[in-house]
Amino acid sequence: MILTVTPNPALDLTWHVDDLRVGESHRVAAGEARAGGKGVNVARVLHAEGIDVHALVPTADEAFVADLRASGIPHSSIAADGPLRRSVAVVDAVTGEATLLNESGTALGAGPEDQLFAQTLTLGRSADVVVISGSLPPELDPERLADLVRVLTGAGVRVIVDTSGPGVRAAARAGAVLKPNREELLAATGLTDPTDAARALLAEGAAMIVLSLGEEGLAILTSGDAGDEIRARLPEPLVGNPTGAGDAAVAAVAAELAASPDALLPSGRAARSRLARRATAWSASAVLMPLAGVLHPDHERLADAVILTDPKENS
Amino acid sequence: MILTVTPNPALDLTWHVDDLRVGESHRVAAGEARAGGKGVNVARVLHAEGIDVHALVPTADEAFVADLRASGIPHSSIAADGPLRRSVAVVDAVTGEATLLNESGTALGAGPEDQLFAQTLTLGRSADVVVISGSLPPELDPERLADLVRVLTGAGVRVIVDTSGPGVRAAARAGAVLKPNREELLAATGLTDPTDAARALLAEGAAMIVLSLGEEGLAILTSGDAGDEIRARLPEPLVGNPTGAGDAAVAAVAAELAASPDALLPSGRAARSRLARRATAWSASAVLMPLAGVLHPDHERLADAVILTDPKENS
Repeated sequence: MILTVTPNPALDLTWHVDDLRVGESHRVAAGEARAGGKGVNVARVLHAEGIDVHALVPTADEAFVADLRASGIPHSSIAADGPLRRSVAVVDAVTGEATLLNESGTALGAGPEDQLFAQTLTLGRSADVVVISGSLPPELDPERLADLVRVLTGAGVRVIVDTSGPGVRAAARAGAVLKPNREELLAATGLTDPTDAARALLAEGAAMIVLSLGEEGLAILTSGDAGDEIRARLPEPLVGNPTGAGDAAVAAVAAELAASPDALLPSGRAARSRLARRATAWSASAVLMPLAGVLHPDHERLADAVILTDPKENS
Repeated sequence: MILTVTPNPALDLTWHVDDLRVGESHRVAAGEARAGGKGVNVARVLHAEGIDVHALVPTADEAFVADLRASGIPHSSIAADGPLRRSVAVVDAVTGEATLLNESGTALGAGPEDQLFAQTLTLGRSADVVVISGSLPPELDPERLADLVRVLTGAGVRVIVDTSGPGVRAAARAGAVLKPNREELLAATGLTDPTDAARALLAEGAAMIVLSLGEEGLAILTSGDAGDEIRARLPEPLVGNPTGAGDAAVAAVAAELAASPDALLPSGRAARSRLARRATAWSASAVLMPLAGVLHPDHERLADAVILTDPKENS
């Protein structure tokens, strides 16, 4: 089982407008409300692919839980103290352009935060992989996240953390698998070269870095031999909606780590190559779909088309 | 007591953005949710002015009812079949410009619609004035609105209807007081001259037309002698937020009709002059405030400044 944790979930509200003009009034159809947040998107992908997943969310918001229930994803929800943050998308029906308003969210509150950590441990100990994904809510101490990662990895669970800010290095020090994009990686380390930055996080303790490079695919780095970097990309970049592409990549990484724990061992290069291929294909197939958390059905064909570059194989 | 009925209420959601740009992503503070709809705004104004008011709303939406409860306005709510419509405002903190998305709403459902009419009659019979304000929900037959107005006016209750579309002429035929703006009046009658259009609605049965003219103030027309038109305006137009100005005018009309029923009699010119003065002042003082349903405290001074033109007084 894969457990996804979304520390700072959001209710995604989407309205479609014919021709959005600032300062004007528009008649619109009823907006859609959807359970959102990166960990939820990861769970959607895994559930749709028939993989055993459980989503843990620190909110009991009615619309959020109703949508999660409708999706059929097994889940546990914890009531937070404050209102759920919302993420608003106004999509222009003509251009397809999305204008976004992201609320930063409120602190969970001490009691709910304790419950979230306790539940993550309880559910996570019996999981193969735990995914902690998205921003951290205000006042959540990254060191607490690090302690959680340590306990879980100590119990033999693979932990993937996909966040930004101080949580990145805290998770690295605790031995997590990380999936930063270039900007997050450079911001977290203060370095200017992505490979240097990834190596720095590996030196601090990260088990693996899955570096997403947008249209250029991704790179997999582990702490084994220097230069053990696998690069994966499609022959041609796909055009579409990049929202959720990173979450699809994380879902693929989680699925591969659940199936092949040796991907984290120095000897696990073959498993890492499979992981790189699947993550690239799932990420690209999410780009083809309008909603986050959904893959294009052709992703197996895309996986076959992925071009891998492994310095070890070429040597 | 004044009863306000809001047949098509909305949850008003407002977000403040530093610099709204179409197609971009913005970090925002948590949005505000407020019970909205024109009848609710009328009730807010009356309640704030210490006038006995009761708001009837066909929704049991949690956020809506919580806000109404917090406002202290006595109210009754009826659960509708579908979800409450929402009205979204994205306000640019720099320019103050509001970009609006108005959901059109869903039908109340047969049962809730019956309950709304039954409750309006029950509460309305013991009211001095009933205000029915805002758009009609989908599938609500304007003839049903007309029948309601007929029963209430037959029972000696003054009824004000502030709507647009086919409800305007249905309410006119049933003997309501109407408060159209120029566009609503011309659209409802198919005529091109506002005074001709107002006279046409009076000929069909309307008890009085309060024609709001924006910065030019308003005009009061009754079915008495031809030419019995009172015009009211401020010496200089006020600059601000016109949202809710019409609702403030309706609140003033309701307050005056509750205090002076003879404003609707041919002999009631003095009462109509007071009504014109108060409606102009309240409408203008709403323009000075950022939120609908709130008057600027200076509205008594504004009322003194209103310039009245009554052809009868000048002759």
